[in-house]
Amino acid sequence: MEIKKLEPKEKKGLILVITGNGKGKTTSAMGMALRASGHGMKVDIIQFMKGDLYSGEWDGVKRLDGLVELVSTGKGFCGIEGNPYPHSEHRINAQDAVKLVKEKIRSGRAQILILDEINNALKLKLIDLDQVMEILDMKPPHLHMILTGRDAHPDVIQRADTVSEVREIKHAYEKEIEPQPGIDY
Amino acid sequence: MEIKKLEPKEKKGLILVITGNGKGKTTSAMGMALRASGHGMKVDIIQFMKGDLYSGEWDGVKRLDGLVELVSTGKGFCGIEGNPYPHSEHRINAQDAVKLVKEKIRSGRAQILILDEINNALKLKLIDLDQVMEILDMKPPHLHMILTGRDAHPDVIQRADTVSEVREIKHAYEKEIEPQPGIDY
Repeated sequence: MEIKKLEPKEKKGLILVITGNGKGKTTSAMGMALRASGHGMKVDIIQFMKGDLYSGEWDGVKRLDGLVELVSTGKGFCGIEGNPYPHSEHRINAQDAVKLVKEKIRSGRAQILILDEINNALKLKLIDLDQVMEILDMKPPHLHMILTGRDAHPDVIQRADTVSEVREIKHAYEKEIEPQPGIDY
Repeated sequence: MEIKKLEPKEKKGLILVITGNGKGKTTSAMGMALRASGHGMKVDIIQFMKGDLYSGEWDGVKRLDGLVELVSTGKGFCGIEGNPYPHSEHRINAQDAVKLVKEKIRSGRAQILILDEINNALKLKLIDLDQVMEILDMKPPHLHMILTGRDAHPDVIQRADTVSEVREIKHAYEKEIEPQPGIDY
């Protein structure tokens, strides 16, 4: 059997949003990073909320021959039980992340830029809507931008080319099963 | 800042289903493969429908130091316009995939087994419900199984620990944007 390979007549950098309350938003973005590496494409990932809790993707992307670079700027999820940092400190981190995103865009290194949990950062007022819109305005025509996290802002959804909502039908934690490596982190 | 690492008291192999009509089901499974590789875990992927059309994950997983093995058994999506193969031929392929899945389970190589688009294969009658249930019955306690594809069967959802439904809010193809490498394939 002959294997066909698609080749779009026009390459176009898309804005993708992956939102909703279900499992599989960051995970889906990581899947695109892996898929892109198969094409030899470069990916930059900025994680807005993660940073205090180890997640397998941190070491996973290191296996991808330097194609995928990941920076976690956060100090964990702001506002959830047990997180010791005040809102102001989370906001400083998120503002640093915005600066880093702009640097990454200007550098032109990557063909895909993943803004992981930027939707949450906006919802929690760690960054402002006009900052997100400014980032989207900076997008060069061939760069794909992937914005993940629950509670995506309607203006961001309006602006995006592709939007998926991941709905939770059920989740293992309801049966008091602890988070499992490789699956949940 | 100290980075914490979760370690579940009880490791438990889960059944996960990722279904729905939106973009991000296979992609999410690939993200778990990448994440798992960060933990040094081994992953086996059987793709039930893909095989005739190149997708970036085929080469992406090859970068993961042998941890992730992927086999595409299909001849493309049965029943969609332009696919030249009869149902009977697709069914033979899918039946081969079922055999391969059982071999993979018996081999004990992997900690995660991804059954990509098995839900579609069942819906299209390329495999039977009792075959899927038999596979789930064979699951060793520590193996995670991830079943992707739209139209997941209610009995499979019932049996799963975690189920996400990816809903399409909008998609670039509505604006006649062609599939883009790294994003769509």
